[in-house]
Amino acid sequence: MDYYAPPVQHLIEEFEKLPGIGHKTAQRLAFHVLNLPEDRVMSFAKALVDAKRKTSFCSVCGNITDVDPCRICSSEKRDKTTICVVQSPRDVVAMERIREYNGLYHVLNGLISPMEGIGPDDINIKSLIKRVAHGGIQEVILATNPTVEGEATAMYIARILKPMGVKTTRIAHGLPVGGDLEYADEVTLAKSLEGRREI
Amino acid sequence: MDYYAPPVQHLIEEFEKLPGIGHKTAQRLAFHVLNLPEDRVMSFAKALVDAKRKTSFCSVCGNITDVDPCRICSSEKRDKTTICVVQSPRDVVAMERIREYNGLYHVLNGLISPMEGIGPDDINIKSLIKRVAHGGIQEVILATNPTVEGEATAMYIARILKPMGVKTTRIAHGLPVGGDLEYADEVTLAKSLEGRREI
Repeated sequence: MDYYAPPVQHLIEEFEKLPGIGHKTAQRLAFHVLNLPEDRVMSFAKALVDAKRKTSFCSVCGNITDVDPCRICSSEKRDKTTICVVQSPRDVVAMERIREYNGLYHVLNGLISPMEGIGPDDINIKSLIKRVAHGGIQEVILATNPTVEGEATAMYIARILKPMGVKTTRIAHGLPVGGDLEYADEVTLAKSLEGRREI
Repeated sequence: MDYYAPPVQHLIEEFEKLPGIGHKTAQRLAFHVLNLPEDRVMSFAKALVDAKRKTSFCSVCGNITDVDPCRICSSEKRDKTTICVVQSPRDVVAMERIREYNGLYHVLNGLISPMEGIGPDDINIKSLIKRVAHGGIQEVILATNPTVEGEATAMYIARILKPMGVKTTRIAHGLPVGGDLEYADEVTLAKSLEGRREI
């Protein structure tokens, strides 16, 4: 005999499909939803559908947006000579949060990863090259994650862009602020030494 | 400037309202949803709405159900002389899982808690008394949690049911199977000693 009424069971299964949500948590979330007023549940369901239906990738930079081109690409206030290349829309948010960068973005929506069968053509690189070829870009900042895939992708892009005469930079690797020499891994420490600057 | 497109921001906020979901997790879940095919998202949204709209409390036992009376109350195979009283629909599932109990349930949907202003009339006790008064019940098993509120609620119900001439039992407290005397708290150990049985 089924333990839960089918609609409840179905909702638990849907929650379980989400990343990082196990069976117990899915049960807890489902019962939380059952205890909500109906308008709150409707609003949640609508948010799900709207987020999927009303958003798409910006045709210029590849960021997730509800207007095309996205608000950053079409903003008058941004410096249109610099492009910061990131892996995902979440990285755009991380960069925006520091309130230091005022240029444009290019979202790759992935990284080159031979292990997972993701090649340069599977991510948003071609459109970046087109943007640079179109002219007006003075610097491309490669801000992919400091992982094997992130480094490989940055190297790949740099190798194409440099011959095009555009300044190509990579964000600095080193000790995180508040970090501890003693607990830093060797690679980070080596990068930190290599990237030393005069003060 | 808003970091996320409004529909994405809205979905993140909806996820954040769920219990135990922080901002970072909400972001991760929202982007997971954005990467799903549209039919999967629709199915998730539908599951939310269906779980809320198609379920209600069983008019007999108070369990969450999509048919009234619920499948357990209307089952021909269950022993209709025994009622197991639990706090929530999730406890029904826990009991069903042990495959040892074949009686009926009564779901209180809460516990008496003067601290939170929840009195006996705020939970599903009256309907339990009615069921017992209606006759045919031989035993009521009080299976509320072994917490202050759970004990108080069990005591309260027992005090009403006993004079009605129905056998009223409380589930056993003691060491969990696989537990360790050394690490058991004093109250559990005392309960375990108090509840000792001849072997």
